[in-house]
Amino acid sequence: MMMDATALSELSALLGSRLITAGGDLRSHGQNESWFPETPPDAVAYPETTEEVSRLVAICARHGCPVVAWGAGTSLEGHALAFDGGVVVDFARMNRVLEVRPGDMQVVVQPGITREALNAELRATGLMFPVDPGANASIGGMAGTRASGTTTVRYGTVRDNILALEVVLADGRVIRTGSGARKSAAGYDLTGLFVGSEGTLGLITELTLRLHGQPEAISAAVCAFPDFAAAVDTVIATIQSGIPMARIEFVDETVARIFNAQAGTAFPELPHLMVEFHGSDASAAEDARRFGEVAESFGALGFDWASTTEDRNRLWRMRHGAYRTCIASRPGCMGMVTDICVPISRLAEAVAETRADIAELELVGPILGHVGDGNFHAILLLERDNPEELARAKTLTRRLAERAVRLGGTVTGEHGVGVGKKGLMPLEHGEAWEVMARIKRALDPDGILNPGKVVEVSQ
Amino acid sequence: MMMDATALSELSALLGSRLITAGGDLRSHGQNESWFPETPPDAVAYPETTEEVSRLVAICARHGCPVVAWGAGTSLEGHALAFDGGVVVDFARMNRVLEVRPGDMQVVVQPGITREALNAELRATGLMFPVDPGANASIGGMAGTRASGTTTVRYGTVRDNILALEVVLADGRVIRTGSGARKSAAGYDLTGLFVGSEGTLGLITELTLRLHGQPEAISAAVCAFPDFAAAVDTVIATIQSGIPMARIEFVDETVARIFNAQAGTAFPELPHLMVEFHGSDASAAEDARRFGEVAESFGALGFDWASTTEDRNRLWRMRHGAYRTCIASRPGCMGMVTDICVPISRLAEAVAETRADIAELELVGPILGHVGDGNFHAILLLERDNPEELARAKTLTRRLAERAVRLGGTVTGEHGVGVGKKGLMPLEHGEAWEVMARIKRALDPDGILNPGKVVEVSQ
Repeated sequence: MMMDATALSELSALLGSRLITAGGDLRSHGQNESWFPETPPDAVAYPETTEEVSRLVAICARHGCPVVAWGAGTSLEGHALAFDGGVVVDFARMNRVLEVRPGDMQVVVQPGITREALNAELRATGLMFPVDPGANASIGGMAGTRASGTTTVRYGTVRDNILALEVVLADGRVIRTGSGARKSAAGYDLTGLFVGSEGTLGLITELTLRLHGQPEAISAAVCAFPDFAAAVDTVIATIQSGIPMARIEFVDETVARIFNAQAGTAFPELPHLMVEFHGSDASAAEDARRFGEVAESFGALGFDWASTTEDRNRLWRMRHGAYRTCIASRPGCMGMVTDICVPISRLAEAVAETRADIAELELVGPILGHVGDGNFHAILLLERDNPEELARAKTLTRRLAERAVRLGGTVTGEHGVGVGKKGLMPLEHGEAWEVMARIKRALDPDGILNPGKVVEVSQ
Repeated sequence: MMMDATALSELSALLGSRLITAGGDLRSHGQNESWFPETPPDAVAYPETTEEVSRLVAICARHGCPVVAWGAGTSLEGHALAFDGGVVVDFARMNRVLEVRPGDMQVVVQPGITREALNAELRATGLMFPVDPGANASIGGMAGTRASGTTTVRYGTVRDNILALEVVLADGRVIRTGSGARKSAAGYDLTGLFVGSEGTLGLITELTLRLHGQPEAISAAVCAFPDFAAAVDTVIATIQSGIPMARIEFVDETVARIFNAQAGTAFPELPHLMVEFHGSDASAAEDARRFGEVAESFGALGFDWASTTEDRNRLWRMRHGAYRTCIASRPGCMGMVTDICVPISRLAEAVAETRADIAELELVGPILGHVGDGNFHAILLLERDNPEELARAKTLTRRLAERAVRLGGTVTGEHGVGVGKKGLMPLEHGEAWEVMARIKRALDPDGILNPGKVVEVSQ
């Protein structure tokens, strides 16, 4: 679809040179981290204030023009691609910390700030925003996809760490949800509704976040296991004995092999757990010691303490870089990253079946994940322009989704729906998916906000 | 309004003797814990299965008959009173534990089970459902009002501990929200939307709850402070130093005096904190010791350890009984309990202003609350049949609500909206309240579910 010329000229009058309608900027906002084809929008807007976002949306509403929010472009299911054309709203210029409230351990930010930039700004306060999805995503994007990641086992998902939002609705009106209070029973949880709605119900223009104290002490370790079931049993026993893990990550033997080849490490080519503890000097050491005992009782091998900050940073850089390292291990490939989450008691089974599927379908797919949450990913390394291999990969993701639902879990633990997983929504939600569509129609009756994502409005 | 006779006969055919249309059962379902007048419904239904609830709602939908969910009748804002007549659905016969999943630390329950009954059933598993609003509420009712309470500072609100729901919609259809996975990014958070919706969007017929390990060790203490600000400063400093409190409760000097008179204790007539720590023997003792140091630095007096289980139980029985003890201290009175929640940095100010208001308005209103969350209550002790005093009490609650919003908080931290706080919703939410109404109309277009509560559908 081509955008209405009047709409473009009104937007141009509003934003001047901050509305881009040609050139590389369109292309770069049509690219993404995953396997979806390049899909440039008609225009890219760079608003600087909530007022501008509100006016922009009001203009688009009058002209029936799609509006798609854009954070850091790190989403994996095509969330921010303008498949129906329209305006991509890039929040790069709304990236400020508006207020730090140390006494309340809160911060108010604009959506365009990235989590790394936010934590850099917070460093001197002794506080941190702990949610860590790996990528240096924007906070607005993390809210939109209900991001979580390596620290969720201790600090919760982004939902658990958002107290309040400012949101521009589909008609341009601005509302506030939540407050600075840590909890509320004052009506429907609109904050929770907008978080994870992927820009389909409103555009988030401000967020009040819950912060946590920077840990006084951190201890970390990496250990290998003879098989994945032993690693999962270690995690279950650790959780049940109440040892508070700040991170507990799993990588399989394929990832270990790729790390060794790409990063020059010398891990045994076996499943590994990478674990971190936060606390006082005494408690972090004690937690680590108790974890070590549990791990040993399940046959852990080669238990290595990352005792220095450098060792620890190296460990987590490696884990965070796993996606790119895996992609780089097959030159010229593109990634398709799966993402299911199951009850932890079914995790070993889910991973074993998935590995068998990957072998049967002759795919390359290292597995890693947030084992404390029952959430894992297979990073499928696909040749570009190989539709036959892409079809096998889609067979795998479909089987994986069916497995997630059969085992009592969800088709996406943290990546979200976008377009990539929309087809799986009826499988997981049944008639509840239609309830989501009713909410979409109630809040965005003309369907201008990120159309085609999450729900099917014609239901 | 009188119920349609056909509706009644259809319901009677469905439920037989489990549909009550006359007598004391109607009256007892028209009473409540607070100052609202007795409001008997037209009928009380006792369904035993989700299927029956679904059929019941479908019958009511065909006849435009109001449906009001009833748990344990302990809500405080008139949530479960059938002001428009219709059927009260009492979940007393849907009160079973359906499945315990120890490996996943989850339990599946019906809504009618009370939190005490649930924890009694869980005792042998080493697990517990920690949310504790004081009253022995039903789990379904706690979900409906987004309850929290004394342990929320450590374990979160009921929202944080519900993974999945089964819900009967306004047309009788049954949906499932959430899953057994600890987190999900699969679309709109319907679980979060139904939690706190007070039966206005659907009837919860099953809940999957997150459980926690019973603490290996518990330590508790009570200490007095020269003034309330010193108590709040102690709590802020404790939170910031990362000492994990399982409970931290405040009672004012009036409550201390009432305890002394009614329970035979000998507390100094000063503000008090009551605090509890959960952990291993070593960590609970260490946390308590560190807390003691913080409290002393803010001038705490008379620091008493409740070292035995009996002492500790006595302490919390007293705190839990505070509402009834306060009511009993003024014979024949009725209670009006306020409930605001503010950022903790504004809590001392909020309490001081409220005390001044209570004095100015010549009311009796002891203050207590969940100080770690910034949430407090004034228990206004009102003469029955004294409209002039009731009017002054309403002035107080209005001022309190305005204060909450001015200080960046919420008009209800945990009691919910019902009818009692509906008039305050525009003050807190502005245009966002209309968004709630849009959601209500989308999910319950004929307005049969708990009509008149939370939202104004004619907006």
